[in-house]
Amino acid sequence: MSHPLPPLAVSLGDPAGVGPEVVARSWDSRRQLGLPTFLAVGDPRSLSAVWDGPIAVISDPRETDDAFHRGLPLLAVPAAEAATPGHPTMAGAHCSLDSLELAVGLARSGSCAAVVTGPVAKSQLYAIGFTHPGQTEFVAERCGVSPGNVAMMLAGPTLRTVPVTTHLPLAHVLDALSTPLIEARGRATLRGLQRHFGITNPRLAVAGFNPHAGESGALGREEIELIQPAIDALRDEGWDVTGPHPADTMFHTSARARYDAALCMYHDQALIPLKALHFEEGVNLTLGLPIVRTAPDHGTAFDIAGRDRADPRAMAAAIRMAASCARFRAQHACA
Amino acid sequence: MSHPLPPLAVSLGDPAGVGPEVVARSWDSRRQLGLPTFLAVGDPRSLSAVWDGPIAVISDPRETDDAFHRGLPLLAVPAAEAATPGHPTMAGAHCSLDSLELAVGLARSGSCAAVVTGPVAKSQLYAIGFTHPGQTEFVAERCGVSPGNVAMMLAGPTLRTVPVTTHLPLAHVLDALSTPLIEARGRATLRGLQRHFGITNPRLAVAGFNPHAGESGALGREEIELIQPAIDALRDEGWDVTGPHPADTMFHTSARARYDAALCMYHDQALIPLKALHFEEGVNLTLGLPIVRTAPDHGTAFDIAGRDRADPRAMAAAIRMAASCARFRAQHACA
Repeated sequence: MSHPLPPLAVSLGDPAGVGPEVVARSWDSRRQLGLPTFLAVGDPRSLSAVWDGPIAVISDPRETDDAFHRGLPLLAVPAAEAATPGHPTMAGAHCSLDSLELAVGLARSGSCAAVVTGPVAKSQLYAIGFTHPGQTEFVAERCGVSPGNVAMMLAGPTLRTVPVTTHLPLAHVLDALSTPLIEARGRATLRGLQRHFGITNPRLAVAGFNPHAGESGALGREEIELIQPAIDALRDEGWDVTGPHPADTMFHTSARARYDAALCMYHDQALIPLKALHFEEGVNLTLGLPIVRTAPDHGTAFDIAGRDRADPRAMAAAIRMAASCARFRAQHACA
Repeated sequence: MSHPLPPLAVSLGDPAGVGPEVVARSWDSRRQLGLPTFLAVGDPRSLSAVWDGPIAVISDPRETDDAFHRGLPLLAVPAAEAATPGHPTMAGAHCSLDSLELAVGLARSGSCAAVVTGPVAKSQLYAIGFTHPGQTEFVAERCGVSPGNVAMMLAGPTLRTVPVTTHLPLAHVLDALSTPLIEARGRATLRGLQRHFGITNPRLAVAGFNPHAGESGALGREEIELIQPAIDALRDEGWDVTGPHPADTMFHTSARARYDAALCMYHDQALIPLKALHFEEGVNLTLGLPIVRTAPDHGTAFDIAGRDRADPRAMAAAIRMAASCARFRAQHACA
């Protein structure tokens, strides 16, 4: 029999961004969207500034189940000063970092089944001494995992992509790409598809780097020299891996039906198709961690924060996917 | 009043590829798809090998109107030997080149309203001494236009994209990109939207080169140094141009509603979203020519030629778009 999952921990992100309101609106729609029980972590004032629904302040994740029916359960992490939506501050950045730290800790300890992270303001975090490129690397470090061994998956209802390289100038991608890196990201993706999605024999499609996947070397040799050896190595381990495929013919409906995830060589190769098809409900999932971590695939959107214009669908999708992945992981661990 | 258009000229492409069958099947569906009158140019045997419909061999484009109701009008360009579907030969390459030459000549002379080109086998053409990178450059030369002044537009029902650079290794794109080239392609696109699509005040969205369009220089400076100056120059001429936009947030439904065409920096940036959204009906349109030229956005597909599996929708869309553009050009020329 399956035990009930602990609640999910959802950090609100920057208190001046859209994080608080998309978490609150997800709670509003919890029944229609079939969302699992979750608790929020962050400043209570960042919620009440943008939302007039009920907040149920709790002091222990075990209170979540009872509280969830009467209000949005909240583990309070008060900021040094209340935030104004759209106006990020150092105090807000500290609060978002403390909230993230607490939420990750709850998932690490098992008090929460997974962590969902609201959007933070990177430039503000850098200003207070945050040295990680983003939340993903921070979460990896807190879990004792090298950033090189995790992979960022972008997932929508009909497509999952994983970029081998992420936030680099395009001209630097080639310096960063290597056969071992492609292989490591591919392996993290395949294992993630097993653990997080319950796919026993996952199928990975690997994109080329050049137009037409290099056309046998006529349009570039990266496919031959870097990508094919990584595919061969993964196949030697028994994985179902195809490619290198021309990236432009990988993402139409019938092509997407032939794989469980697409491994892409650079940011836009992975993000263009995902957002073209699933802009409103893209989820960012970190593979390779001992915990489940998801996030909505959008930023703080300070320009629309507090104006009742933020779309909560991506946050709701991140919460739903975190629960689904946590359930698969629990089954896998017990199997 | 509007005069009736002359027929369109449709070259069959390589006689061993899917060109003949997608042209024939387009004729089969001419009523359902609302296709205009067109004539085919190529080897009669390449049609009869894959299709048992009626062929109406003609010797003058003026016979097309009468012939179109009883069969597929064909200006015969016999190959030295009959082709077997799926097995390209030198004789077939010669035939495809002669057919292209004749079809382009008919459009140049005004005997046909536009030319639609079926897919050719580039490697076969190179083997018989063809020195152009592709049909686009060949058509440009026959029209007396420098390849640098034409632009390749990929068009589907809800998206038009134009890549500034096309078939280059991705690592060479940066060497090829320049402000004058971006500006020239942008101008060709804007004029093309006026002439071919009848859009009086066309809106052009320009993509960045780096993730997040370089994030103000933190992820690359090409936006600041190469792209923004081209946008400024086009705006100074009075055009409605926006960008540089992060490429991954340009292609969802509501983003696409904000422009008439997207100018992209490299092949896959333009082709990934187009084919993700409109794989079965993508049309390749050459802008900057004195004639209208379209093509289905697919290749010879030798692996499925003659097996009744080729999808004629892209060819039908290319024929329909050629007629629509020819009508707009005729109105524009008379205005």
